[in-house]
Amino acid sequence: MKNVKLTVEYDGTLFYGWQRQKNDRSVQEEIEKGLSKIMKKNVKINGSGRTDARVHGLRQIANFREEFTIPIERIPVALNSILPDDIAIINAELAEENFHARYDAVGKKYIYKIYNDPYRSPLWRNYAYYVGDELDLDKMIKASKAFIGTHDFIGFMSSGSSVVDTVRTIYDLRIHREGPLITIEIKGNGFLYNMVRIIVGTLVEVGKGKKSVDEMGKIIESRSRKRAGHTAPAQGLYLSHVYY
Amino acid sequence: MKNVKLTVEYDGTLFYGWQRQKNDRSVQEEIEKGLSKIMKKNVKINGSGRTDARVHGLRQIANFREEFTIPIERIPVALNSILPDDIAIINAELAEENFHARYDAVGKKYIYKIYNDPYRSPLWRNYAYYVGDELDLDKMIKASKAFIGTHDFIGFMSSGSSVVDTVRTIYDLRIHREGPLITIEIKGNGFLYNMVRIIVGTLVEVGKGKKSVDEMGKIIESRSRKRAGHTAPAQGLYLSHVYY
Repeated sequence: MKNVKLTVEYDGTLFYGWQRQKNDRSVQEEIEKGLSKIMKKNVKINGSGRTDARVHGLRQIANFREEFTIPIERIPVALNSILPDDIAIINAELAEENFHARYDAVGKKYIYKIYNDPYRSPLWRNYAYYVGDELDLDKMIKASKAFIGTHDFIGFMSSGSSVVDTVRTIYDLRIHREGPLITIEIKGNGFLYNMVRIIVGTLVEVGKGKKSVDEMGKIIESRSRKRAGHTAPAQGLYLSHVYY
Repeated sequence: MKNVKLTVEYDGTLFYGWQRQKNDRSVQEEIEKGLSKIMKKNVKINGSGRTDARVHGLRQIANFREEFTIPIERIPVALNSILPDDIAIINAELAEENFHARYDAVGKKYIYKIYNDPYRSPLWRNYAYYVGDELDLDKMIKASKAFIGTHDFIGFMSSGSSVVDTVRTIYDLRIHREGPLITIEIKGNGFLYNMVRIIVGTLVEVGKGKKSVDEMGKIIESRSRKRAGHTAPAQGLYLSHVYY
């Protein structure tokens, strides 16, 4: 039995999300359909985690265990010729027998893009969060420091998650601007449901002057979803890297 | 009568092109519909030139002459609230009485993006030309020098154009690479039908080793469409600037 680790890029715009759905288009289902065709049997994959509708994958990781004879380096080419053009396999390699894309992940990096300009951008409409108001980047950078470290992030979690332990560690949070485009990179040992998007929404409110830099620590400590900011929209979010 | 100069950004993916069509979706028609609604009369605009289906506009210019009372600085906001999200007006200003977006243009700048990697990119599928083979960038840069200056570019024109004078001047042609993304910037006093895309197709063939750097001059001098390279696909092309 071989255990294969796949690296997947996808444009989330036209997907209901990563996870297989009954009636809606998912990345997982498209890959499983493609693999099942190549392997001529029913193949199931494990993703490193779900992504929501319209969220993008730069380097999503998945694995599957199967017997097969096709050379492993042929899998990306064979799969990519079958997959729809909004999904591509950019690497396939043999993993250790027990490797599991979800359970073995020790951290993740997400990228979030904000398009900040007086006028919305048609070219970025599906790839960034449009914010028309001026944002004070210095304040956002200062506020971002409060998130780094180990905290109970229960206030930065949307309902609908069954997670019990809501303590997570953020290793790094970087913000930079290039023209109208603000990029936020956030690395941590794990993220709660919508945690990145709520952190970004909170930072945007700081940038607009609706929340102050000084209250960030208290907002986190309050463990209150109501005190944190809004959930930034899905299309600005990219799963960028999974650490093992 | 006011003469208004509009700067327009659009994502060409879902358009048949700039120019109004009988049955297909065009950027011009969407803007004219929006303006006509705001002005409460039939408004027609002049674009600086057509762009084909799937070609993008970063700073397309258009103008229209009309009597109206709405403050000019309100036009982008008012129009953008009506326009579909793949078009935005990013500037509106009063132009001189005789200004015409097409006849007064003295030059244009186009950007062309190539995504060059062993695996295709879902996120760039509508925004770059995917080339899987390795490209020799040095050769492409050397070959690009042959295009700079004044030449009869009839060999770099697709059929279907009624243009008589096929002599054009290219002021500048720059190529740079950032990771898998190759960006070609080309500035000239005007471009024939598909000229940028055929120049790019020719340079890609040089990058692949199918054409040599040394034969570039001869290919241009031959004035033969057959000797030039293929027409690179539309989705990599961006109208970036119009000079007046």
